[in-house]
Amino acid sequence: MDLDFVRNLKKSNNTKIVLLVLDGLGGLTINNGGLTELEKAVTPNLDKLALESVCGLQIPVGNGITPGSGPGHLALFGYNPIKYQVGRGVLAANGIGFKLENGDIAARGNFATVNEEGLVVDRRAGRISSEKNNELCKKLCNNINLDNCSLFIETVKEHRFLLVLRAEGLSSDIIDTDPQEVGKKPFKAQGFSDKSDRTVDIVNDFLNQTSDLLRDEKPANMVLLRGFSKKPDWPLFRDVFGLKSAAIASYPMYKGLAGLIGMDLLKSEGDSIQDEINTLKKYWGDYDFFFIHVKKTDSYGEDGNFDAKVKVIEEVDQKLSQILDLNPDVLIVTGDHSTPSALKYHSWHPVPVLVYSKFCRPDKVSKFGERDCITGGLGPRFPAEDLIPLALANSKRLEKFGA
Amino acid sequence: MDLDFVRNLKKSNNTKIVLLVLDGLGGLTINNGGLTELEKAVTPNLDKLALESVCGLQIPVGNGITPGSGPGHLALFGYNPIKYQVGRGVLAANGIGFKLENGDIAARGNFATVNEEGLVVDRRAGRISSEKNNELCKKLCNNINLDNCSLFIETVKEHRFLLVLRAEGLSSDIIDTDPQEVGKKPFKAQGFSDKSDRTVDIVNDFLNQTSDLLRDEKPANMVLLRGFSKKPDWPLFRDVFGLKSAAIASYPMYKGLAGLIGMDLLKSEGDSIQDEINTLKKYWGDYDFFFIHVKKTDSYGEDGNFDAKVKVIEEVDQKLSQILDLNPDVLIVTGDHSTPSALKYHSWHPVPVLVYSKFCRPDKVSKFGERDCITGGLGPRFPAEDLIPLALANSKRLEKFGA
Repeated sequence: MDLDFVRNLKKSNNTKIVLLVLDGLGGLTINNGGLTELEKAVTPNLDKLALESVCGLQIPVGNGITPGSGPGHLALFGYNPIKYQVGRGVLAANGIGFKLENGDIAARGNFATVNEEGLVVDRRAGRISSEKNNELCKKLCNNINLDNCSLFIETVKEHRFLLVLRAEGLSSDIIDTDPQEVGKKPFKAQGFSDKSDRTVDIVNDFLNQTSDLLRDEKPANMVLLRGFSKKPDWPLFRDVFGLKSAAIASYPMYKGLAGLIGMDLLKSEGDSIQDEINTLKKYWGDYDFFFIHVKKTDSYGEDGNFDAKVKVIEEVDQKLSQILDLNPDVLIVTGDHSTPSALKYHSWHPVPVLVYSKFCRPDKVSKFGERDCITGGLGPRFPAEDLIPLALANSKRLEKFGA
Repeated sequence: MDLDFVRNLKKSNNTKIVLLVLDGLGGLTINNGGLTELEKAVTPNLDKLALESVCGLQIPVGNGITPGSGPGHLALFGYNPIKYQVGRGVLAANGIGFKLENGDIAARGNFATVNEEGLVVDRRAGRISSEKNNELCKKLCNNINLDNCSLFIETVKEHRFLLVLRAEGLSSDIIDTDPQEVGKKPFKAQGFSDKSDRTVDIVNDFLNQTSDLLRDEKPANMVLLRGFSKKPDWPLFRDVFGLKSAAIASYPMYKGLAGLIGMDLLKSEGDSIQDEINTLKKYWGDYDFFFIHVKKTDSYGEDGNFDAKVKVIEEVDQKLSQILDLNPDVLIVTGDHSTPSALKYHSWHPVPVLVYSKFCRPDKVSKFGERDCITGGLGPRFPAEDLIPLALANSKRLEKFGA
């Protein structure tokens, strides 16, 4: 839904909305005729809630499209994930919790191996250890000097690092230097337009100095850069939807995404679901909207661990009453995409969703599962980006449209 | 779905996709409380497949919109049928298998009757026979000379013919000369823009010569032209979706549509369903994607022959195992639109569809029929143009979108 359309209808009151995201919630049966993870899980509390909710399955990006975590969450936050795309550099910064300032240029880097002729022979430098990576980042940071430009080089993981350039008037309109294939030379930095001339010079200066500094390293004797991007200048969640909002998430990636649209990031004692719920209770009076992120459903899905994914869903079910006891006006339970343990990967399958409120007009769904939700009131292909407008409606935070 | 969006996500592998189109598949009950053609048909094999598939009903163009065969098929091929429209001239060429070259201008023509004042009195010249039409086409072809422009005039059927002009630098920006009403004079050719000046002169020269040559014919003493158009310059199916594709269809219209987007056209021994399946088997190793077209469901629908349409569906059902024995990674069974025998015409009703793959997440639908498919996982209004992206997903031919 167009953000300005919703923005013009929003109104405030004292209601509270909770968006509970079980990452990668949707699943598949392991063998035909069996049950999915969610269907297998014993979830008396979610099932009871489903009875009082409007249920369905939602599509984060489009039919057949497998969402990354970024697009999956942006859709849940009400932002069209095709219109609002995040560059890889910014995502890398988010991923490690690096706070980008306005105007910073971020790029995702690979340590790589080039041969004597300068041709790439390994785009990942044999997946060097994160420790080695950290050592190289420090070496580069301590020895590179750029003309009127600050420099940050941070380890991400294995061969991956983050490069951030900070200066006045930089542009992110620069093509990747990563040729994406072995047997080719890394590209020199090139701009899409004149306005990136200065940034191109800085990046090429960085690449030359880096090449000299890494000359005797093995195997990581070069770097490849891609996804030059700036912190996006998007409308803030609070401004669009009128909700003072907070994110309760333990992984930097999800905090980063919530931070991009201006949500406050709340710190929990630990990483467990109970820790997150404790945080919710602690800050209950301070916000209109809470995004709670449960990571482990996705992690076990990616591991192919069906039973462990089932157990995480059951744990959430057991703790659901603690959320309900806070009397949220609206509670949405869903995922940012499916991660079937049968596939060990994100997938394109629609994601079960329930929207609970006193005014939601419940359907006949009495079990929170993929096949049961098909016949729910939200239908089997509800656009994820409409969930926030629907939550606003259910909390009486939207004016009537037109006279 | 935007073709460039999908194009940027595609990847290749060795999977195979079959799109089995039963033309005009969807139907209606003859009397209330009865069964549709598909519901009436005894289809144990389709029903068993439905159990292992994700089912639903699809909308080719839009709610309430009755698709022609062109839009219906383009939607099934993943092309938005409102964005990708084919001119009538090009469709007429397709319909008779005339191979348009780039730059050719095609127009659909009618032989018509004008009175002594030149006013149209019959837009179809009393629906002259195709034989008479052919005689007139030859007469025109043999006697008309245009300035540096080749000319093709081909019989379509009854009063309908195809005009093709071939020369350098022609434009199709020309309004119809058919006034669409009796009692009016045929229009002279006129261009939308300066760049059609030369083409306008050629068309008017053609019309003058034609008028002279037909002066003494009865009743076909004039021609009316419409739908000036060029072979469209559309993205090719293979380039967009990464699929080496082939069409198995016996009617020129469907071969023509498939040819427009670059599918190879495979020749069968005969026109029967078994002939088409034999062709599928013969070329199984050579392509990633097969479009198989069964015409008779539509023909009998248009005849109002409920029982014969049922029988064609049953024949497809009996031969389904021959397709399944090839082990396609994805099999889609659907139609390009509905043709209820109760209406004897194409209709706007959604079309039953099943998408079978190992990873499709089956729903509870156990009978392939209009009413059962409503509760399928694709929902009762799935956009037909998303079927190919969904097939790509199910054959693991799409990258994740975003990180």
